[in-house]
Amino acid sequence: MDIDDILEEAAEVARPAAEHGKVAGYIPEMAKLDPKSFGLVMCELDGTEHGVGDIDEPFAIQSMSKVFSLILAMQKLGTEHTVTDELWCRVGREPSGDPFNSLVQLEHEQGIPRNPMINAGALVVDDVLIDHCKDPDASMRELVRQLTGDEIEINPAIATSEGGASYRNRAMANLMADFGNLNHTVDEVLTTYNDQCATMMTARQLARSMRFLANDGIEPDSGEQILDAALARRVTAIMLTCGTYDAAGEFAFSVGLPCKSGVAGGIMAVAPDHSGLCVWSPPLDSSGNSLAGRAALHELTNRLELSIF
Amino acid sequence: MDIDDILEEAAEVARPAAEHGKVAGYIPEMAKLDPKSFGLVMCELDGTEHGVGDIDEPFAIQSMSKVFSLILAMQKLGTEHTVTDELWCRVGREPSGDPFNSLVQLEHEQGIPRNPMINAGALVVDDVLIDHCKDPDASMRELVRQLTGDEIEINPAIATSEGGASYRNRAMANLMADFGNLNHTVDEVLTTYNDQCATMMTARQLARSMRFLANDGIEPDSGEQILDAALARRVTAIMLTCGTYDAAGEFAFSVGLPCKSGVAGGIMAVAPDHSGLCVWSPPLDSSGNSLAGRAALHELTNRLELSIF
Amino acid sequence: MDIDDILEEAAEVARPAAEHGKVAGYIPEMAKLDPKSFGLVMCELDGTEHGVGDIDEPFAIQSMSKVFSLILAMQKLGTEHTVTDELWCRVGREPSGDPFNSLVQLEHEQGIPRNPMINAGALVVDDVLIDHCKDPDASMRELVRQLTGDEIEINPAIATSEGGASYRNRAMANLMADFGNLNHTVDEVLTTYNDQCATMMTARQLARSMRFLANDGIEPDSGEQILDAALARRVTAIMLTCGTYDAAGEFAFSVGLPCKSGVAGGIMAVAPDHSGLCVWSPPLDSSGNSLAGRAALHELTNRLELSIF
Amino acid sequence: MDIDDILEEAAEVARPAAEHGKVAGYIPEMAKLDPKSFGLVMCELDGTEHGVGDIDEPFAIQSMSKVFSLILAMQKLGTEHTVTDELWCRVGREPSGDPFNSLVQLEHEQGIPRNPMINAGALVVDDVLIDHCKDPDASMRELVRQLTGDEIEINPAIATSEGGASYRNRAMANLMADFGNLNHTVDEVLTTYNDQCATMMTARQLARSMRFLANDGIEPDSGEQILDAALARRVTAIMLTCGTYDAAGEFAFSVGLPCKSGVAGGIMAVAPDHSGLCVWSPPLDSSGNSLAGRAALHELTNRLELSIF
Repeated sequence: MDIDDILEEAAEVARPAAEHGKVAGYIPEMAKLDPKSFGLVMCELDGTEHGVGDIDEPFAIQSMSKVFSLILAMQKLGTEHTVTDELWCRVGREPSGDPFNSLVQLEHEQGIPRNPMINAGALVVDDVLIDHCKDPDASMRELVRQLTGDEIEINPAIATSEGGASYRNRAMANLMADFGNLNHTVDEVLTTYNDQCATMMTARQLARSMRFLANDGIEPDSGEQILDAALARRVTAIMLTCGTYDAAGEFAFSVGLPCKSGVAGGIMAVAPDHSGLCVWSPPLDSSGNSLAGRAALHELTNRLELSIF
Repeated sequence: MDIDDILEEAAEVARPAAEHGKVAGYIPEMAKLDPKSFGLVMCELDGTEHGVGDIDEPFAIQSMSKVFSLILAMQKLGTEHTVTDELWCRVGREPSGDPFNSLVQLEHEQGIPRNPMINAGALVVDDVLIDHCKDPDASMRELVRQLTGDEIEINPAIATSEGGASYRNRAMANLMADFGNLNHTVDEVLTTYNDQCATMMTARQLARSMRFLANDGIEPDSGEQILDAALARRVTAIMLTCGTYDAAGEFAFSVGLPCKSGVAGGIMAVAPDHSGLCVWSPPLDSSGNSLAGRAALHELTNRLELSIF
Repeated sequence: MDIDDILEEAAEVARPAAEHGKVAGYIPEMAKLDPKSFGLVMCELDGTEHGVGDIDEPFAIQSMSKVFSLILAMQKLGTEHTVTDELWCRVGREPSGDPFNSLVQLEHEQGIPRNPMINAGALVVDDVLIDHCKDPDASMRELVRQLTGDEIEINPAIATSEGGASYRNRAMANLMADFGNLNHTVDEVLTTYNDQCATMMTARQLARSMRFLANDGIEPDSGEQILDAALARRVTAIMLTCGTYDAAGEFAFSVGLPCKSGVAGGIMAVAPDHSGLCVWSPPLDSSGNSLAGRAALHELTNRLELSIF
Repeated sequence: MDIDDILEEAAEVARPAAEHGKVAGYIPEMAKLDPKSFGLVMCELDGTEHGVGDIDEPFAIQSMSKVFSLILAMQKLGTEHTVTDELWCRVGREPSGDPFNSLVQLEHEQGIPRNPMINAGALVVDDVLIDHCKDPDASMRELVRQLTGDEIEINPAIATSEGGASYRNRAMANLMADFGNLNHTVDEVLTTYNDQCATMMTARQLARSMRFLANDGIEPDSGEQILDAALARRVTAIMLTCGTYDAAGEFAFSVGLPCKSGVAGGIMAVAPDHSGLCVWSPPLDSSGNSLAGRAALHELTNRLELSIF
């Protein structure tokens, strides 16, 4: 059976799961998402792309932006060791065991978030970006352009709504500021963060953007070294252990690939030496991950034997 | 031995303790406090006042303002039972066991602070005041005028500095807003809170203002019922169990009176059916209470057998 | 109206509250308690006793034994300052803010329980008693004999059942042992603890036993100094701030006296310079305190103006 | 360069790291371990074995036994779905974020441990084994015999010492019993657990025993299906996300293989489709993992490009 057929079947098997999930409704723009939207796409290292469904419809990347922020910070801070000095003393690299928006761990651990995939960690990474990029938004757009060939945009209505709904993020940012773990104002950091969450990308673009992580840090079309191979591995290791909120163990088993999810229902994944993947289906399970998305990735990685385990 | 002599002796015994404490330094205006300042004053219900040291020098009342806020909220919300409906469903009445500025309890208990004497609780009380007073600052000045006969002022430099240093309070306010436990904006609530903390009063004024709590809610000079007797008892019960941060048990034993302390080194106390008291000495112990202040109150209540136990 | 009439009325007002409570059912012997049992008794310092209802029926004193253990430990360890060295470095004196059987605080605070009125704290006190008494059970019986003139017994069936149901206490004891805060075996400490809980006393005996705490540490009939006056105040201060589980603030307000409750529905109280009191009604509220018991004490202290506030 | 040379070099690079670590000293038998012991071994699926150093010296497998217990429980409970019913409702599959011996998470989450690789989780797994194996120790010996061809033994002195030092584990077991999450007595469960920890195996045996997890659940020599392929993947996914205490994220990056460590300084690892590995060097880092062991695995997996990322 060829890959396109397998994608079709994975989609068919997974789609009904969406009925048991719930579209994120914390801001009106998110609540408008069509629960029936579904896209599944795989971009191989050689440039071949396979897709089914709504793979060219842009949606807010939300927490998936945390991966791009981390990549940018690593690019700016250079080698693994320099990174240790400036980034990794301010944010950890271990799973948190607490919900993605918990303040308890921050208070107990001196304002150092556990990892860059939870909200508090991404806020610290953004604070680093403000130091090192003239314009963090422009840097992210440029990074995605390098990885996908496409220009992307921020949805200003979503960015504004995120800002209005971000009491919890604002609480975290202030708590970290209290511990001295922010160099810039809470407003500046939150604006950067909310803009990133409101970045609009298609499933195809997201899948493409993951290929370099499957390829020792080298964008396969251009041959450009986006990140040192060791740093690329750092990113995928963090995605596997921390990328899917409180379901990292379950994803490691059921999907078997480094993944990062977002509340708009996207999940992007890295199949080492093979491809970048993305699935999109807005209804979420109780852990905040796309229900049909996980089912589709499970089906696909099992049929194609892509699991890293 | 007469009361004035006993006050003199209590002051003499207590003063050296100040050397082992530390003046609060989180904002420059507080760090300027003279560690040698010391005042001790007792205002009896019959109007007799006894004092020693710097009892007429104004200082920032800081957390002692939480008692006045609570009194105002109780006045506005009327009977004990009405209170239950609007105030006590939003803030508890039990000791917290956590530091005064902890967010852990808030996160675990749906944004409901444990009591009105910790920062989070006072922020909720202030949110209530904004609903019920045209101008909460004016209401507090008017309340203190009723209780002391004096006009009091806010120190704008301190109020502004508090605002600049209040990351932790801002974190708490945002977390409570996230749980839906604030009706007004975080900025509005914090401004009210910081202004109250920056209210300048003398030890004599503070002692006077506690007399009505020792007198079934009736201001003894004017005969005015400031609070219903049961509500006055509610205030003193909360002061005893929650008024001195994480040292309530120790104060109950060593002083034996309902107390409320502030980081400028003031402690005010209520001796039921007898007097209002206040001591002021800026150096604090590790629990945030005035070191010499506690020693002086211990000495005084023991010699005069004022302990309620 | 005379005191006996007031007791009658307080009982009448309070009794119906029992219908809304729940008898503790964690062991069969406790579940057998008659929810209709009710006794209220006040023993004045001059020897006058007033009572209504089932005041001479023995029931298991359960957590009220924690007060007697603490008194014994203080007697054995002598002056306040010696006490500081051996007892108070192993158990705190502050409200916990956590449930009476929580392990979280123990783990976060190096195995030092917050106060001697919660289970973990009482286990440490019992460990101290095993060091200092030949036979802690005999010492407690002797103490109660001194305070009441009566011989008391342990109910072996209850003691055994307690032992069988004490997973949580066993967990705490092992956790404290892990931190090095027990000198004796977990079994030895738990046996002592369970025996104390299974001590059978009547409401009248409990009320009598509290009189010396209302009388500067002196048993009023014999004139014997049971505890130094300062240490007696230490006990009542701890009862007020920590004696009624998570409802200490509420009791301070509604009853206004140092109290200690037990899960068999007893609450004993100290009215300084006046009397010892006890009420018994098995049905409990959600905080583990006797529902009608608290109502009766509220009524009584308000009518007789016994509140210390 | 051939594999044996690479192992030699990895060992050479890693050995000095041991000087910065600390041998576990919580029981005398462990403190006796020679900090200079070092062994590194790789057992390929085709039967080829490469080793350097002390690879045939038995040591206590300690927490590595948790992998064997989990495998046994999965064997006994059959398919993935049956497993869900009986095992996975009693223990989770997610990283904990708390130390391996924390009780906080247990208290907050109804006595359900986060995963089977922390002590509490392994105790639950052992409770399951007592239900399903006539003799859990014999079952483990038989499993290891199947996987390695060798007979293994329990060191009774270590087992006894573990029992004497296990206050923390005993606290956890009692807390779980309190929540109803143990079917057997605490003593029975702890005995099984301690015996497993005291199982003596060599690095070579441990490496061999991991081969079937690298081979879709099939023991490569015998061709026997030890576990269903999906269940084998479940085990390796849990090892990767939870197998190295609070350093899972760091191991995922630096080693890039599913690993499980023990406090005697062993770390075993699975290289999918390639080999089982084990390294042994007693001195530990602050996270409880072998310092030189991690360094050796890092070196080896990088040179041989074995990382799954």
